[in-house]
Amino acid sequence: MAALLVIDVQKGLDEPVWGQRNNPGAEANMARLLAEWRCRELPVIHVRHCSVNPSSPLRPELPGNAYKPEAQPLPGEIEFTKTVNSAFIGTGLEDYLRSHHIAALVVVGLTTDHCVSTSVRMAANLGFEVALVADATATFERRGHDGTLYSADDMHAINLASLNGEFCTVRSTQQVIDAITAPAA
Amino acid sequence: MAALLVIDVQKGLDEPVWGQRNNPGAEANMARLLAEWRCRELPVIHVRHCSVNPSSPLRPELPGNAYKPEAQPLPGEIEFTKTVNSAFIGTGLEDYLRSHHIAALVVVGLTTDHCVSTSVRMAANLGFEVALVADATATFERRGHDGTLYSADDMHAINLASLNGEFCTVRSTQQVIDAITAPAA
Repeated sequence: MAALLVIDVQKGLDEPVWGQRNNPGAEANMARLLAEWRCRELPVIHVRHCSVNPSSPLRPELPGNAYKPEAQPLPGEIEFTKTVNSAFIGTGLEDYLRSHHIAALVVVGLTTDHCVSTSVRMAANLGFEVALVADATATFERRGHDGTLYSADDMHAINLASLNGEFCTVRSTQQVIDAITAPAA
Repeated sequence: MAALLVIDVQKGLDEPVWGQRNNPGAEANMARLLAEWRCRELPVIHVRHCSVNPSSPLRPELPGNAYKPEAQPLPGEIEFTKTVNSAFIGTGLEDYLRSHHIAALVVVGLTTDHCVSTSVRMAANLGFEVALVADATATFERRGHDGTLYSADDMHAINLASLNGEFCTVRSTQQVIDAITAPAA
């Protein structure tokens, strides 16, 4: 069974510095998925960003480094900390997955186009099977190099379109829950 | 000085199966950059995709695996072959860069949101300084998981907006050429 990989669901991403966000219900969907995984005793893996950027609210000594309540790990659940976007660089995540014979991941978290996309891409390229939960991820509006401002919804949708089929299968929270709660054939 | 990293500029990407593309002049811009790098004897690195997907025109035994003429390596230039999107997975690229004390990359090639984006993300997360040349990359229209069709221009622009500032600096061909041809201060 796939592990639930929860990326960077930290309080510092609520700071206004990031701009407008999409999917305000993403954390509630993450909490639903966590509840399903936990009640089935399926593997849950937490990833926490510990920024080395002097101006980031996700620096380890700041309150913004803390997990949001919806994604707070329970005792006994494993956590990997990282300093870059990819959950696979500078962490023991790949070794952990291989040593625990985990070949598939269901990915949720923040942000769709930065840490989530980078981690999904590397997971797929390392040979893991990845499902990405569209309504349990979210991102922010971003400005292009030419000054154009793109909405968070557009950033989210187009980044998912780049990932779907090439690196992962994009699913909804309900689709994932329906699949794991379906009676065995 | 930065190495010019040329990703997947192969004939098989001209097949109609990929859909509508943007930036028809991208290959001409890659050729301009290659000429500038070569006449200054700066490092050029070629990456070639050797697909293991049965239906891909980029399989090594197919004519589509060949480089396009604009990106044909010269004798003595190094090439890395890969089977996944990232130029850093399953290749010696990282070791090569470190052993040659190359800390910065100027990235061009195909496609913006698949192999180029994945390689740029990993390069940045591994600590390399990356410039990505917007008009010397290109991508295709793509369909989202909900069936929405996004144009190649939208895919390109929004993927660059996700990368710029976080993983790389987005530049134009002319900006890169102006910078390397500027008289030393």
